[in-house]
Amino acid sequence: MSLLVVGSVAFDAIETPFAKTDKIVGGAATYITLSASNFVDKINLVSVVGGDFPKDTLELFQKKGIDLKGLDIKENEKSFFWAGKYHKDLNSRDTLITELNVLGDFNPVVPEEYQDCEFLMLGNLTPDVQRSVIQQLKQRPKLVVMDTMNFWMDVAWNSLLETLKLVDVLTINDEEARQLSGEFSLYKAALKIQTMGPKFVIIKKGEHGALIFHKDEYFYCPAFLSIDVIDPTGAGDTFAGGFIGYLYQISKKRYITFEDMKAALVFGSVMASFCVEYLGPEGLYDIQAENIENRFEQFRKMVTI
Amino acid sequence: MSLLVVGSVAFDAIETPFAKTDKIVGGAATYITLSASNFVDKINLVSVVGGDFPKDTLELFQKKGIDLKGLDIKENEKSFFWAGKYHKDLNSRDTLITELNVLGDFNPVVPEEYQDCEFLMLGNLTPDVQRSVIQQLKQRPKLVVMDTMNFWMDVAWNSLLETLKLVDVLTINDEEARQLSGEFSLYKAALKIQTMGPKFVIIKKGEHGALIFHKDEYFYCPAFLSIDVIDPTGAGDTFAGGFIGYLYQISKKRYITFEDMKAALVFGSVMASFCVEYLGPEGLYDIQAENIENRFEQFRKMVTI
Repeated sequence: MSLLVVGSVAFDAIETPFAKTDKIVGGAATYITLSASNFVDKINLVSVVGGDFPKDTLELFQKKGIDLKGLDIKENEKSFFWAGKYHKDLNSRDTLITELNVLGDFNPVVPEEYQDCEFLMLGNLTPDVQRSVIQQLKQRPKLVVMDTMNFWMDVAWNSLLETLKLVDVLTINDEEARQLSGEFSLYKAALKIQTMGPKFVIIKKGEHGALIFHKDEYFYCPAFLSIDVIDPTGAGDTFAGGFIGYLYQISKKRYITFEDMKAALVFGSVMASFCVEYLGPEGLYDIQAENIENRFEQFRKMVTI
Repeated sequence: MSLLVVGSVAFDAIETPFAKTDKIVGGAATYITLSASNFVDKINLVSVVGGDFPKDTLELFQKKGIDLKGLDIKENEKSFFWAGKYHKDLNSRDTLITELNVLGDFNPVVPEEYQDCEFLMLGNLTPDVQRSVIQQLKQRPKLVVMDTMNFWMDVAWNSLLETLKLVDVLTINDEEARQLSGEFSLYKAALKIQTMGPKFVIIKKGEHGALIFHKDEYFYCPAFLSIDVIDPTGAGDTFAGGFIGYLYQISKKRYITFEDMKAALVFGSVMASFCVEYLGPEGLYDIQAENIENRFEQFRKMVTI
């Protein structure tokens, strides 16, 4: 019984209309695991960093129950680095720098003891790499959640389609859902994507929330309304971490229903709200369970009629 | 006891990625009144058209209970005409033609028998004109709802501030709320706008839904998920018409609470969903009460956790 997360652990340099950072800790798997750690005691991480990655962050990961046996530390190389600048509305951004470094030839090896994982979260990586992770597992996990982006639709279409066949839940933004499906209507897009493999499609809309589709059912989860949004970096991954973390917690108790999926979407949204209120992953370092419950209740109030 | 709507009745020519029209019937008050007519038996309209405006549309208005005593028909002039083209994502559009025609010197005269109105909906017009309507009323209505746009912030700032002092509910989109308040956070923006007059602030986000704020309470109403969106023209006005129409209906029975406002937002969203599925106001011409109720229940299901 374990939750396995595969994705980048890296450095980001971020500029928003409200703040600017030097190199700080980032990466999809950083946000996913920190977020999920609020629901799960132990998370297995498969990723790669360079020798430049701060040891105290790795210690923090371990304190949060994030197991690092699957973290490849290449002492003589440098961690992946991304720098970006957000536009005024925070909904779009320009990439200023991408240094692949250790991520350039990342070929994740899933340690033997991780190979029986029951829940798998694949952060945004090349579809080839995502598929190779699934293929290393001893049996098919109960739930495979995968994130992707438009870039892979442009440069690795066939591989993406192959990988999609193997996953249960796809998280994707609205524009990407349209590109992947060729449908403008998000409803039709979600139906079409379900024919490609994923039984559940989560369409992320940033500050406008997220939708989950399953067959012809769907649920609209607005974004939690943060009083101040400082930095949206990692919000989508934090959302995914809350989503899979909550479901993993529930799966220990009982069979997961679509109602649980809905609640998981809301927990994801709540976790993302903690993320965007601080720079980088800072808002995720010390969240009290009580605050999560409070925001969940606030959320319920915000949407209940 | 009456509901008074003041706004444009006009022609539009619309191009979306899915359809294109010649001159068809449009105008804020057209959408507002047609939408509200599903909740209210009689609606008083103050507007102006030219002799070119189709008589059969006016007959349709009357059949829907829209009283035309306040409609000034300038036989020898032309109706307001707007032509626009939507971008691929339907969230933004370019104006191609604006011919003010009869709207250029529109100075609405509220007929004597309309002057005791209890509910007033002011469609998007110059703030001077909106204020002049309020000033012609015998007593202050129970509820004044006003729509505006960024253009008036640019060219009629002081007049807009004067008018805002006189209204209860302001409907405005997210970008405009930020411009009006100088706050990026929609929560803070709504708090600030409340100090300018309106006790309730509705922030419209198009396909992403709408929020209503009152003091430090708020409610997030996602947009109803239409299977196919053909033309978003008039969706905001249709939304406003459903909102005020439903509240007016409720006010006949009891005192209006914030819970009613929330439901009104959902009814507004439901009405807008009928609008966007057809070109122009076509989707509003024949809506069955049963369909409204069905979508309201579908909506409840879509957001309930």
